[in-house]
Amino acid sequence: MMITLTTDFGVGSPYVAVMKGVVFTICPTARVVDLSHAIPPQDVRAGALALAQAAPFFPAGSLHVAVVDPGVGSARAIVYAEIAGQRFICPDNGLLSRLADQHAPSTIRAISNPALFRHPVSSTFHGRDVMAPAAAHLCRGFPVDQLGPPLPSLASLDWPGAEKVAHRITGRIESVDSFGNLISNITADMLAEAPTDDRVGVYCDEHETRGIFNAYADQPPLTLVALVGSDGRLELAIVNDSAALMLGVGVGTPVEVRW
Amino acid sequence: MMITLTTDFGVGSPYVAVMKGVVFTICPTARVVDLSHAIPPQDVRAGALALAQAAPFFPAGSLHVAVVDPGVGSARAIVYAEIAGQRFICPDNGLLSRLADQHAPSTIRAISNPALFRHPVSSTFHGRDVMAPAAAHLCRGFPVDQLGPPLPSLASLDWPGAEKVAHRITGRIESVDSFGNLISNITADMLAEAPTDDRVGVYCDEHETRGIFNAYADQPPLTLVALVGSDGRLELAIVNDSAALMLGVGVGTPVEVRW
Amino acid sequence: MMITLTTDFGVGSPYVAVMKGVVFTICPTARVVDLSHAIPPQDVRAGALALAQAAPFFPAGSLHVAVVDPGVGSARAIVYAEIAGQRFICPDNGLLSRLADQHAPSTIRAISNPALFRHPVSSTFHGRDVMAPAAAHLCRGFPVDQLGPPLPSLASLDWPGAEKVAHRITGRIESVDSFGNLISNITADMLAEAPTDDRVGVYCDEHETRGIFNAYADQPPLTLVALVGSDGRLELAIVNDSAALMLGVGVGTPVEVRW
Repeated sequence: MMITLTTDFGVGSPYVAVMKGVVFTICPTARVVDLSHAIPPQDVRAGALALAQAAPFFPAGSLHVAVVDPGVGSARAIVYAEIAGQRFICPDNGLLSRLADQHAPSTIRAISNPALFRHPVSSTFHGRDVMAPAAAHLCRGFPVDQLGPPLPSLASLDWPGAEKVAHRITGRIESVDSFGNLISNITADMLAEAPTDDRVGVYCDEHETRGIFNAYADQPPLTLVALVGSDGRLELAIVNDSAALMLGVGVGTPVEVRW
Repeated sequence: MMITLTTDFGVGSPYVAVMKGVVFTICPTARVVDLSHAIPPQDVRAGALALAQAAPFFPAGSLHVAVVDPGVGSARAIVYAEIAGQRFICPDNGLLSRLADQHAPSTIRAISNPALFRHPVSSTFHGRDVMAPAAAHLCRGFPVDQLGPPLPSLASLDWPGAEKVAHRITGRIESVDSFGNLISNITADMLAEAPTDDRVGVYCDEHETRGIFNAYADQPPLTLVALVGSDGRLELAIVNDSAALMLGVGVGTPVEVRW
Repeated sequence: MMITLTTDFGVGSPYVAVMKGVVFTICPTARVVDLSHAIPPQDVRAGALALAQAAPFFPAGSLHVAVVDPGVGSARAIVYAEIAGQRFICPDNGLLSRLADQHAPSTIRAISNPALFRHPVSSTFHGRDVMAPAAAHLCRGFPVDQLGPPLPSLASLDWPGAEKVAHRITGRIESVDSFGNLISNITADMLAEAPTDDRVGVYCDEHETRGIFNAYADQPPLTLVALVGSDGRLELAIVNDSAALMLGVGVGTPVEVRW
């Protein structure tokens, strides 16, 4: 079975290797793939976005372990959930809220069966002592219904959508990718009736660009362009450079489309 | 079959995981290895150098997928090529030009058969929608001659060599490794008749060092040394520190050897 | 067999991929896992700590290859050692000294049999030409007793312990993790008789905190807390932020506990 790992440990952190070692010790045949270890420390929302972005592309039944866990050692539960054919293990702190907004979870259980844990369980590294071993045991066939009791719901975070009124859509920057592209919460659907030529304006902070293009290369280098990215959301990009740096904006900045 | 991935997505980018997920969904038995995801954004030359540096060390027949693709969505082709026993999939933008300068490609084909693609094909992420699925299908035995039509040649970039006149070689810094070592385009062959003791001088910007050494440890820490690196090229290094930072020079800076 | 790689090459360095390619070419069935490639350049002590932190969690018999090798090409040996059920290949420069302080090595051999090497052996990249091929050959069943002659001991580094006198423990920061948590050389054992409430004070540079907590989340964000980390050592952390940055201290800073 395929297990992916998402953490805020930092790329190259030996803590990631510790989790892999624990998995392989329990389940030598597991296949472990890094989803991302570059989630900013304690940034649950960024972790939730990364999971929503990448997990759906893995083979059905893959098990995604996510450790962005500022509440480690506190009362927050650790959960197992199935969403849209993928399986997840993570602290119940909103990490799955983005996915769960799009697809209702079909199974939710607490992971509380101590037979799964690495003992003694530390109070600061449940990735190593709870989540990695639970994933490895599942990988070996441990029954889901013995993980712990069913839970009625997952912790949720607010993921405000953009709003459309007549010829005007107002949204915000939701994430910034590694190229510095600014990805908004304005979906392709909302743009369906907007023109794509220069009758449409896209506004972000004091910046403006006209038209919605298909590809970065449709405009010359260093031009600000708006396009619908591979995720199906409107993004602002500087061709061959970083819009985040060049525009000095980031997550939360309002974006408006008018035509 | 072994598939390597080279991208400018940034280490830890979920986009890398997306490509892996696509590969594993189509070809669950694929073995995927990261070649590098630290190529600077849109830096096709750096990608070409990384491929030339690492791909030849993989088992014959490995498939190297490289996505440094500023022209994504434009008219540039996506190609399959075989060079020196290795196989490659990438945009035809010069990414293979460094390898192809050293070894003539034996097979070049466009990847244009839509049966290979993930649909709908986005205009901004052909790594996910074209290159990863094509690699996975090849991995499952998809016939090379059905990828698309043969092409006569690959896009080329200029890789100027160093020049030798009598007792003087003039070249330039071609890359900087993660230690800050400055790797030139002056080959070991060109240095064959140069002395290695202090009769030889190596000059870079206003800096000078005498002698060509075997190992960094041949000189004390913080000394500027010249040596022939593991790639067979003259490099300048500061023992136990970064020559790039200490000398303030980088790719393109002229290097001269005189004796 | 499982092979892990630890280097100071930098995350994303193609040199890491070169080593993997060499391993897979010799031993196609090897499973290669990254332990860390974020060891600071030439920082043998940091490499030793990373190995001690992560290697013990891997399946018994795993082979850990570590290349932090400022003396490459000099007289330093390359060694094979077995420590606490794990196997190691690295330059004999102290990389195993932290582990060997905790568990006596059971086997130590030089790796000097040229049949193992990739020829010609460069003088600057023994990771590629000696250590990766030796690991791959071991993986294929090459006998340990033919690696090279037994050695009596490994190179050692000084790992000073903390000192306890009555109600006072004096130690130092030994490492800083990717969250900026400051991990000391004061062990849980030394703290066994200390109170954990506000009768105990922890002092570092001009900073002070009272009490020893179980979890980061026991205190509000941006609070300085002391706790025993997952490694069994006292650490200082700023809840949800970086203690290293906020306190401006790092490896070597004295830490004192008094009650």
